[in-house]
Amino acid sequence: MTAAKGIEGMNMIETTVRKITGIDSAAAGAARARQDALAKPRGSLGRLEDLSVRIAGIRGDSRPVVRERIVFVMAADHGVALDGVSAYPREVTPQMVLNFLSGGAAINVLARSAGCRVAITDCGVAGGLLPVSDGNGFYARKIAEGSFDISKGPAMTRGEAERAIGIGIEVFEAEYAKRPFDIAATGDMGIGNTTPSSALVAVFAGIPAREATGRGTGIDDRTFELKVGIVERALSINAPDPLDGIGTLAKVGGFEIGAIAGVVLAAAARKIPVVIDGFISAAGALVARAIEPLCAEYMIAAHRSAETGHRAALELLGLEPLLDLGMRLGEGTGAALAITLCDAACRVLDETATFGEAGVSDR
Amino acid sequence: MTAAKGIEGMNMIETTVRKITGIDSAAAGAARARQDALAKPRGSLGRLEDLSVRIAGIRGDSRPVVRERIVFVMAADHGVALDGVSAYPREVTPQMVLNFLSGGAAINVLARSAGCRVAITDCGVAGGLLPVSDGNGFYARKIAEGSFDISKGPAMTRGEAERAIGIGIEVFEAEYAKRPFDIAATGDMGIGNTTPSSALVAVFAGIPAREATGRGTGIDDRTFELKVGIVERALSINAPDPLDGIGTLAKVGGFEIGAIAGVVLAAAARKIPVVIDGFISAAGALVARAIEPLCAEYMIAAHRSAETGHRAALELLGLEPLLDLGMRLGEGTGAALAITLCDAACRVLDETATFGEAGVSDR
Repeated sequence: MTAAKGIEGMNMIETTVRKITGIDSAAAGAARARQDALAKPRGSLGRLEDLSVRIAGIRGDSRPVVRERIVFVMAADHGVALDGVSAYPREVTPQMVLNFLSGGAAINVLARSAGCRVAITDCGVAGGLLPVSDGNGFYARKIAEGSFDISKGPAMTRGEAERAIGIGIEVFEAEYAKRPFDIAATGDMGIGNTTPSSALVAVFAGIPAREATGRGTGIDDRTFELKVGIVERALSINAPDPLDGIGTLAKVGGFEIGAIAGVVLAAAARKIPVVIDGFISAAGALVARAIEPLCAEYMIAAHRSAETGHRAALELLGLEPLLDLGMRLGEGTGAALAITLCDAACRVLDETATFGEAGVSDR
Repeated sequence: MTAAKGIEGMNMIETTVRKITGIDSAAAGAARARQDALAKPRGSLGRLEDLSVRIAGIRGDSRPVVRERIVFVMAADHGVALDGVSAYPREVTPQMVLNFLSGGAAINVLARSAGCRVAITDCGVAGGLLPVSDGNGFYARKIAEGSFDISKGPAMTRGEAERAIGIGIEVFEAEYAKRPFDIAATGDMGIGNTTPSSALVAVFAGIPAREATGRGTGIDDRTFELKVGIVERALSINAPDPLDGIGTLAKVGGFEIGAIAGVVLAAAARKIPVVIDGFISAAGALVARAIEPLCAEYMIAAHRSAETGHRAALELLGLEPLLDLGMRLGEGTGAALAITLCDAACRVLDETATFGEAGVSDR
């Protein structure tokens, strides 16, 4: 069954990737021309102007809107969590997913604040706590009871990696069919998932494990050394090839990270801006970029995470984050905040009067 | 009449300043304790957590809300604008105020986006274009047809400076009486007003004119040198005393800058957080701080402006801005964006479930 689902995932990935093209430079140019005609000194709204131009190019619309919004929270467990790389026990993953479902987590609050709906997917959470059927924005897509320990071998099979990415695409499309959205955001939950994310960033950026590894939920020096050692072993045992995005995901990734890559690819295929949350989302974005480099043109980096490897990941993606608030929670919390900036940027472009309309003298 | 209004302004300032006390550290402590109990790693929302704790202290409420919001846009003209320090002609000031009144300016758009009402005050705009009576969020409080050229003498009399600050307090109180608000923001409009703002920052920070002076709406090298020279002359001719806030405002300030100082003092007196927009607002905040240092505890810095002297102003105020998007428009645009972050921060504090409530295992 897993093999069949892997093939299904692969077909889905190929179909999606074939739809991805570069962004619409004519729409971006028209948006820039309009920004320059608005009654304010040219460039005086700085990166807010650039953001609106970027979204115009992504949407192929010189006056894009950011009305309907969604954050995709992908959850899974990780074999490495059992090695003690996290400050929290593994049972926290399903507990937090239940917290998401009852609306009490930070991502629920920030999504409400940003007028953003939330879709939560169990991509491979361990334990029997979570619902086994879909409903209320929840998708039961458990690939396995957590990934394998990457310090001892591959996280998953290649077929499972394809399935993980396919889940991201599938859930994206299901939500789009339910109600089309103008912007999407990524989020994650998975105790231990900064460890595979660090491994992925180290592979794709070609940097040592230590430079890609941070303190996650807040570990002490001893645990940090353990974590660096685990990332180093994961890289040496699995010898991932950075040119093989799916293979690298299978070797040192995680189920939810693959699903995030799927959301990114699906967004690029549909020409919808996708707000990349923090470190784990950036790792997923790197997997997507390894599969189809053009998808990076559809990404918006939400914030600069406090996590060490995030800087290298953002550089590789060619993204400058909108916010820098020292956040490191994940869940999509930074992305939800950034969505309000995307909305504000597009509203300025669309609703501000030009010099001519306002009867204001230009320089 | 001006003298009488000056005395009236002084009484208003004294009455307001007497109400200003330090923030409520018990409420701030209770907010911090609650943040630490929420189901997320401690500190993982970074500055968003600090912001909620800060607002709790300001409001004296361990779970503050940011429901009703307002931005006060203060407008006036400046004698120095006639010296050619700006890229735009002086007529743009009333034209832009009319644009604010018809809802077509960037601040109108961003305020709508942030669910924030706008109050606009003519503190001293030159020319006869603006309404002469109040209505629809507009306050006709013209002190004079623009301030005098600070490179040739004082911007205004001491009585007018007191009146300008009094206008800020009066408008704040009028809007509060109309409908109480949970957060206030400052904004400005006034062609040429980065010049007096640079002079004010140079005085209060004790730095050379050149270090406090930037490119404003976008001037060329030659105009920049002219502007630095004007700030230098303003400082040498007027010899302002940084310990005398009102005197410094009178000598090298502007009417709208004084009104912004009034808004800041009124906010501190009412224990309402006041979001300081960019460079001109920071200059107004420095005037307020010179009058009553405690008012700085009530300020939230919206963003790091592209304007050169802003950094020195923020350091003096002890504020770290929330956003850094290369904005330099003024009007309150950065403050409107920052208000949504203040709301998000308070919502996380209030609405997120604790570890206990969510049934999530702590570390």
